[in-house]
Amino acid sequence: MGLLVVGSVAFDSVKTPFGEVDNVLGGSATFFSTAASYFTNVSLVAVVGEDFPEEHVAFLKSRNIDTTGLDRSTGKTFRWRGEYTYELNEAHTLDTQLNVFESFKPKLPESYRDHEVVFLANIDPDLQRDVLKQVNNPKFVACDTMNFWIEGKRDSLIETLKLVDILIINDGEARELSGEPNLVKAASKIRSLGPKTLIIKRGEYGALLFTESNVFSAPGYPLETVFDPTGAGDSFAGGFMGYLTNTMNLDDANIRKAIIFGSVMASFNVEDFSLNRLKTLNYQEIENRFREFGRLTHFDDI
Amino acid sequence: MGLLVVGSVAFDSVKTPFGEVDNVLGGSATFFSTAASYFTNVSLVAVVGEDFPEEHVAFLKSRNIDTTGLDRSTGKTFRWRGEYTYELNEAHTLDTQLNVFESFKPKLPESYRDHEVVFLANIDPDLQRDVLKQVNNPKFVACDTMNFWIEGKRDSLIETLKLVDILIINDGEARELSGEPNLVKAASKIRSLGPKTLIIKRGEYGALLFTESNVFSAPGYPLETVFDPTGAGDSFAGGFMGYLTNTMNLDDANIRKAIIFGSVMASFNVEDFSLNRLKTLNYQEIENRFREFGRLTHFDDI
Repeated sequence: MGLLVVGSVAFDSVKTPFGEVDNVLGGSATFFSTAASYFTNVSLVAVVGEDFPEEHVAFLKSRNIDTTGLDRSTGKTFRWRGEYTYELNEAHTLDTQLNVFESFKPKLPESYRDHEVVFLANIDPDLQRDVLKQVNNPKFVACDTMNFWIEGKRDSLIETLKLVDILIINDGEARELSGEPNLVKAASKIRSLGPKTLIIKRGEYGALLFTESNVFSAPGYPLETVFDPTGAGDSFAGGFMGYLTNTMNLDDANIRKAIIFGSVMASFNVEDFSLNRLKTLNYQEIENRFREFGRLTHFDDI
Repeated sequence: MGLLVVGSVAFDSVKTPFGEVDNVLGGSATFFSTAASYFTNVSLVAVVGEDFPEEHVAFLKSRNIDTTGLDRSTGKTFRWRGEYTYELNEAHTLDTQLNVFESFKPKLPESYRDHEVVFLANIDPDLQRDVLKQVNNPKFVACDTMNFWIEGKRDSLIETLKLVDILIINDGEARELSGEPNLVKAASKIRSLGPKTLIIKRGEYGALLFTESNVFSAPGYPLETVFDPTGAGDSFAGGFMGYLTNTMNLDDANIRKAIIFGSVMASFNVEDFSLNRLKTLNYQEIENRFREFGRLTHFDDI
């Protein structure tokens, strides 16, 4: 039945050392569903305002993304403005206008309720659980979060984590959530909160996977030109969840491949502003870069 | 003929979140030669003062390290005092006393002049070339450096780099040396200065290898307890150069294996203060961890 995602659809204004864009298509659910659409059918739950142009909806539909759950509310679309310095690892938020997102109460269309896989992008953990309650019997559930909820809605987040199979967060968030500077210890604490599978994203340094018996280290792809890191984490999650939904297999070897597909999607996404690179991508390029990840990390046994 | 290293032998005083030690054995050449000694014969060039205890020399000899080139001068041994916070990636130097190191003019014993492999640890680039001139016909030469020389003796460092096959530096040094924030671009600039093989160390994030046609990404080993990062980079270089000297093979596959052996030695070294962990290590443990690096990074092809 495909992959359900709830998250934000937004207008981003972004400045990096390499250029500047204003009010371009962004949002966690947008990056996620576009990346995932290369692997599986995606159904989107989000809200936009009256100012959201039809061409963006048409683009999502062109990626075969089900937009029945894209609510168009009275008011303006969520807006985010941020800046990156040469470090490129961390966005400096200059302005956030929640607009229609402020009163967002996701209500799933009837046709969405039988989805087998759910991704709860970075939104209020209360809303994450609201969405989850509306799905009949998901095979597995993954989620993201951020420091804002870890600090401000910790108890609610802990409730959400109890219902989640896979948590995908970055290293700073893992440290804050666990209170542990060491990532191995942090992972063990976080996994005891619910998610049996934990993926810790480390920006340009790649990602770590922690499961019951295993640790997997995926590299970042060494790019000569990183244009705009916005959406890298969501593209990663989209490629990862898209591949898992396509294969419906959570064994260790398959999760590792899914992480590499996620890393591939993130590496393409940062090559241009907004979704520009994902818009022109084809599956052959994805496979080629997957194999490049193989050459990047391979070494012979002794 | 084995591996020649010139560098520092020192007393370190180190404070980390996990403890504190005073005037313990340290120095780039000490960590390097101990790590390398698990793979090949090592000959050490360095200087110590009258206060350097015989037990430390005895330890080096017990690792089969040739200490003929360990000069004992009038005065005190080089001392370094530093501190690490929970980040653990960067040492904060509190005090440096060069002592006998200040007037160090390395003079190679006759028996050292036919070494086939040379490692110039992080010392004044003038001295690095002085040492190199005293070796008859090395098959390959590697070196390390630091920001202090990149900033203060750039021209001399550039002269040294022209004579070097392999440069091993960290990411901050690579950015400073090249003036490029992006590591892929930085690598290409640095390789044009001389070293055909460039290894960029990234602390807990592992290392990147850049050659003419290849990039290789080695992970950091996810340790639950990092006790003291002092000497990690030198242990890495020691394991790397030790394995290369043992095999005398610079093809891409072998350099990759050498990088994993280097990463293995660094991962053991940080598990305890000073050389405590390297002192108790055996080769079986090294091989076991090499294979763990394999499991840590392996994923199936598509």
